[in-house]
Amino acid sequence: MSACPIQEILQPLQSLRLIDPHTHINPHQAASRTLADILGYHYYTELAHSAGLAKEQIEEPGLDPREKVRRLVPWLQHVENTAQYSWLLEMSQQLFGFADDRITESNWESLYDASLRCMSAPDWEQQVLQKSGLDQVYLTNDFDDPLQGFDTSYYVPCLRTDDLVFHLTKPTVQQRLQAATGIAVTDATSLRDAVGRLFQHFTANNARACAISLPPSFSPASVSSVVASQLVAKSFSGAELTAEEQSRLSQFVFWMLAEFCDQHELPFDLMIGVNRRVYEQGVYQGQDLFDSRVSLVQYRELFNAFPGVVFPVSVLAETSNQELVSFAWIFPNVITCGHWWYSNIPVYIERDTRARLQAVPAGKQVGYYSDMYKLEFALPKFAMYRRILAKVLAEDFVGGRGWSVERAVELGSRLLRGNVESIFGGIQR
Amino acid sequence: MSACPIQEILQPLQSLRLIDPHTHINPHQAASRTLADILGYHYYTELAHSAGLAKEQIEEPGLDPREKVRRLVPWLQHVENTAQYSWLLEMSQQLFGFADDRITESNWESLYDASLRCMSAPDWEQQVLQKSGLDQVYLTNDFDDPLQGFDTSYYVPCLRTDDLVFHLTKPTVQQRLQAATGIAVTDATSLRDAVGRLFQHFTANNARACAISLPPSFSPASVSSVVASQLVAKSFSGAELTAEEQSRLSQFVFWMLAEFCDQHELPFDLMIGVNRRVYEQGVYQGQDLFDSRVSLVQYRELFNAFPGVVFPVSVLAETSNQELVSFAWIFPNVITCGHWWYSNIPVYIERDTRARLQAVPAGKQVGYYSDMYKLEFALPKFAMYRRILAKVLAEDFVGGRGWSVERAVELGSRLLRGNVESIFGGIQR
Amino acid sequence: MSACPIQEILQPLQSLRLIDPHTHINPHQAASRTLADILGYHYYTELAHSAGLAKEQIEEPGLDPREKVRRLVPWLQHVENTAQYSWLLEMSQQLFGFADDRITESNWESLYDASLRCMSAPDWEQQVLQKSGLDQVYLTNDFDDPLQGFDTSYYVPCLRTDDLVFHLTKPTVQQRLQAATGIAVTDATSLRDAVGRLFQHFTANNARACAISLPPSFSPASVSSVVASQLVAKSFSGAELTAEEQSRLSQFVFWMLAEFCDQHELPFDLMIGVNRRVYEQGVYQGQDLFDSRVSLVQYRELFNAFPGVVFPVSVLAETSNQELVSFAWIFPNVITCGHWWYSNIPVYIERDTRARLQAVPAGKQVGYYSDMYKLEFALPKFAMYRRILAKVLAEDFVGGRGWSVERAVELGSRLLRGNVESIFGGIQR
Repeated sequence: MSACPIQEILQPLQSLRLIDPHTHINPHQAASRTLADILGYHYYTELAHSAGLAKEQIEEPGLDPREKVRRLVPWLQHVENTAQYSWLLEMSQQLFGFADDRITESNWESLYDASLRCMSAPDWEQQVLQKSGLDQVYLTNDFDDPLQGFDTSYYVPCLRTDDLVFHLTKPTVQQRLQAATGIAVTDATSLRDAVGRLFQHFTANNARACAISLPPSFSPASVSSVVASQLVAKSFSGAELTAEEQSRLSQFVFWMLAEFCDQHELPFDLMIGVNRRVYEQGVYQGQDLFDSRVSLVQYRELFNAFPGVVFPVSVLAETSNQELVSFAWIFPNVITCGHWWYSNIPVYIERDTRARLQAVPAGKQVGYYSDMYKLEFALPKFAMYRRILAKVLAEDFVGGRGWSVERAVELGSRLLRGNVESIFGGIQR
Repeated sequence: MSACPIQEILQPLQSLRLIDPHTHINPHQAASRTLADILGYHYYTELAHSAGLAKEQIEEPGLDPREKVRRLVPWLQHVENTAQYSWLLEMSQQLFGFADDRITESNWESLYDASLRCMSAPDWEQQVLQKSGLDQVYLTNDFDDPLQGFDTSYYVPCLRTDDLVFHLTKPTVQQRLQAATGIAVTDATSLRDAVGRLFQHFTANNARACAISLPPSFSPASVSSVVASQLVAKSFSGAELTAEEQSRLSQFVFWMLAEFCDQHELPFDLMIGVNRRVYEQGVYQGQDLFDSRVSLVQYRELFNAFPGVVFPVSVLAETSNQELVSFAWIFPNVITCGHWWYSNIPVYIERDTRARLQAVPAGKQVGYYSDMYKLEFALPKFAMYRRILAKVLAEDFVGGRGWSVERAVELGSRLLRGNVESIFGGIQR
Repeated sequence: MSACPIQEILQPLQSLRLIDPHTHINPHQAASRTLADILGYHYYTELAHSAGLAKEQIEEPGLDPREKVRRLVPWLQHVENTAQYSWLLEMSQQLFGFADDRITESNWESLYDASLRCMSAPDWEQQVLQKSGLDQVYLTNDFDDPLQGFDTSYYVPCLRTDDLVFHLTKPTVQQRLQAATGIAVTDATSLRDAVGRLFQHFTANNARACAISLPPSFSPASVSSVVASQLVAKSFSGAELTAEEQSRLSQFVFWMLAEFCDQHELPFDLMIGVNRRVYEQGVYQGQDLFDSRVSLVQYRELFNAFPGVVFPVSVLAETSNQELVSFAWIFPNVITCGHWWYSNIPVYIERDTRARLQAVPAGKQVGYYSDMYKLEFALPKFAMYRRILAKVLAEDFVGGRGWSVERAVELGSRLLRGNVESIFGGIQR
């Protein structure tokens, strides 16, 4: 046994090929076209804005990509300490051959040009996938996505349902639903027909999950079909619902989604805890925060009612992780899933990983997903996770419990890859 | 000073004899009779069930112990990563001479047979106590336990009061109370007489604590005797109380218990934060969870009203530990107590221990209790705690503050043993 | 690169001169006169009381300082494990030449005498400042402090506003306000005039911040001037406000303070989460605790309404730190500030520091303040922080991310000193 087995564990984990079970990739334009696509990721725009950059500077309509990067670069020096910056640097070094250890006002143009050369290669998308070791990339698709024009066995559709649950009273959403399904919704029954069509469409196109993000205040509950029918009819007739009625309608639609997941044997990804538009003047996608006063006990009725549905659960705050660990330890249908958003920095990933490994059955843990908008981010994000995972395995299992390196690697491989296959379904091509 | 003093600190802590201040041991059958008693511990049944084992498989009436173990063993491979599994392995190796590092479908029968041989020895209970270094084991006794037929100076009674506080409206509980005390309760005064008899019975039989587990929603409060008397009369006359009335009655009984603790100088163990039956279809004892939205501020009135009562407080979630540390830092009557249930895994024990050692007077910390149902669990559980304690002492005190190993061991010994004696009363035989 | 760069990073951080951005120093008597001033710090009296010392023993009117220390010393042995005790020891060793490693009943008098000799030197205050490396000390001033008789370029005034926001209905506060401003308040307008005078007075005397501590229940909100005027008139006419009215008045005054901070370009220090007088019989200043059920989402409206006001935010519980990190990551006007009160022990400082460094722009982090009542505490408290900061920088940045020691020191220097200057304004003498 090595004195320091972290590297011994890390190496095989690094060579493992991956399935990324949650991203926001656009399969029609998966890779970046310029560095602006990368620096335009909200993690950088919001940090630069937080450090002092005016929002208007980077959200100016028609802004040229090179100019956008030029405006962002001076602010990078203020966020060099962040984990997010370390992703940018590692990506630049690994994918674009960047040789410096800081991106500054004096060297950014050479990075811009080098990355542009890379991105202009006709097979850039394939290069990135290859270098990142990605075998599959799961998507986040609007309910009315036609799912055409890309290889769904590679870019795997997932039905994102925030609009259906939380915005169904909006005329645009109602119109999109009718356009997508051909059904004019008038009551709970016709709504169920329409949503059923969506599930048929998605599962026919290789969808592997239904997914939703949920505010801290949400508590799923079953709603009687009589009440629901009145609410649906009222809303689709153009009348405005009260806040209380909206809330009941949300519960009804959410519950119906769980029923369809049950019927179609689709995992239902729950991403729990986000408050939308807390910082109203924030940059694009940089306005949401959370309220740590949330509990998985709010999901008690749901988890009991649907023992046949697998719920991969992401929580936004590290303070919710012990609840997630405990619920996954008790409920067969609750899965721990990744390290979401504000918890996706090393200090929280390490704590969460440690607790999950100590108390949740190994097969019920989805280690990581990138949540990326552009393909280039998988490489540095998964690299960060693999290093932390190797450290925890080395310290707690090889060091603390006398496991062999091989056995630790086997456990790590399940979190990184094996469980994604067993929980969401393996590659079927 | 050694470069690595963890082992130097651990060794004397390992040879220290212990008092286990909270268990669920049945003193009439303290040790296990077969491996099924051990694998039947809810920590294993619930993890196996969470990993996929059907509840009916292991809760079949009249199931043969060997068959029960045979059905559980295949699921162990799914939970080898857990701390709970590590207890099973360490126990098997230390108590039953198990030589492998995994319990599998191919070796479990030899473990079963070897453990059966050990457990069949007429002095097995004494052997376990001796090997575990246990001088005393505190029990959890129903209020109507006759406390007869066992040595109460060894198996120390504790009056468990959940039934009195939260289930007093149930006819069976009312009948048990009358049977135990000979008092027909009709109002607050006769209820006080009855509960007083219980305290007399328990303290006459060497009881060292009153104990209760409490849901996150509970807030102790004083209730006027006029209101209380009406509620007691209504409930004992067979009428049903409203939820609000039940809640007031619970507060009244709880407050009365604190008064009796004051009068009898009994510590009142508060185990704060459990929600019962969250997973209704879970295995036996594997249905409870928690809601981290709880605060010790809810106990403000209680802690102020009873300065003479010692309250050893356990919290279920690690997110409550800083509150516990701070309350114990300020209130003379609040004691930090062990690492309860979902917090009883290394990652949380280490964090809790570190914070308590840095901010709570040394004499006000009960380091650990096993919470065990069978004697064999004390050994691996205390071993886990001792390793963590030695690590924290070595890093924070010898390394961080330049203490000698001897002084660190002295501090560790107080947490492990000395404080149990000073807080609950020493051995009086 | 050194194998262990902690010391390499620590040394330059130790030689850095400091500005302490939050203290309770009385500038007319900044240093201690006897050891009783130090042991009388609530951190020691409350811990000794928590360990068993009767409050009356140390709060006896007219108690001689030496006698007070004599009564406290026997209780120190019970709290030697605490971080607070380590400050006392380090201070005694560094400032008073104490050579032992414990303060006991046999050596305390020599420490008392030695410290008395030091404190009796006419330049003791300057000696302490020099040895502690302090260039400036920020104060906490009552709103009616004349700010006369001390050098405000050294002892920097801060307008503390708890009384205005939470106690304005008390006749004594109303009288103090009139005495300080010469304005007889009758309505919202005259109240605004009076508070405006306070801001003029403070900013004319070099004030660098407005500050307030806030209970977990408080949510800032804008209140209409019509409603506010009625409340102010009612209260200043001597009528009693309902709890609801008091709450609205608090919101009104708080919001007005933010408006004045905006107008005067003063940072508004928010210290969020304290519950006052939870332990009513506790020692002086040892009665306050917290409720971890609090969220920065409660401050959403405030942070949005005042983009031009800088809010250095302190949170009382470590469970709130991830919210603080995330809000500072998104909101340009939210600054992470120090490690307050119950979070001011190494285990929490280390976790908080790690998370902030990984996700908040470097320039938006005020690393530490001492919160001290007597000058002697800055030395050991900042020493504790510097050691933790050096450890995190060494592990996460030099070790984890390959930074040079110089670069890590540069980052640490910003947290310790540079950001205090850029956020609160540098030294202007």
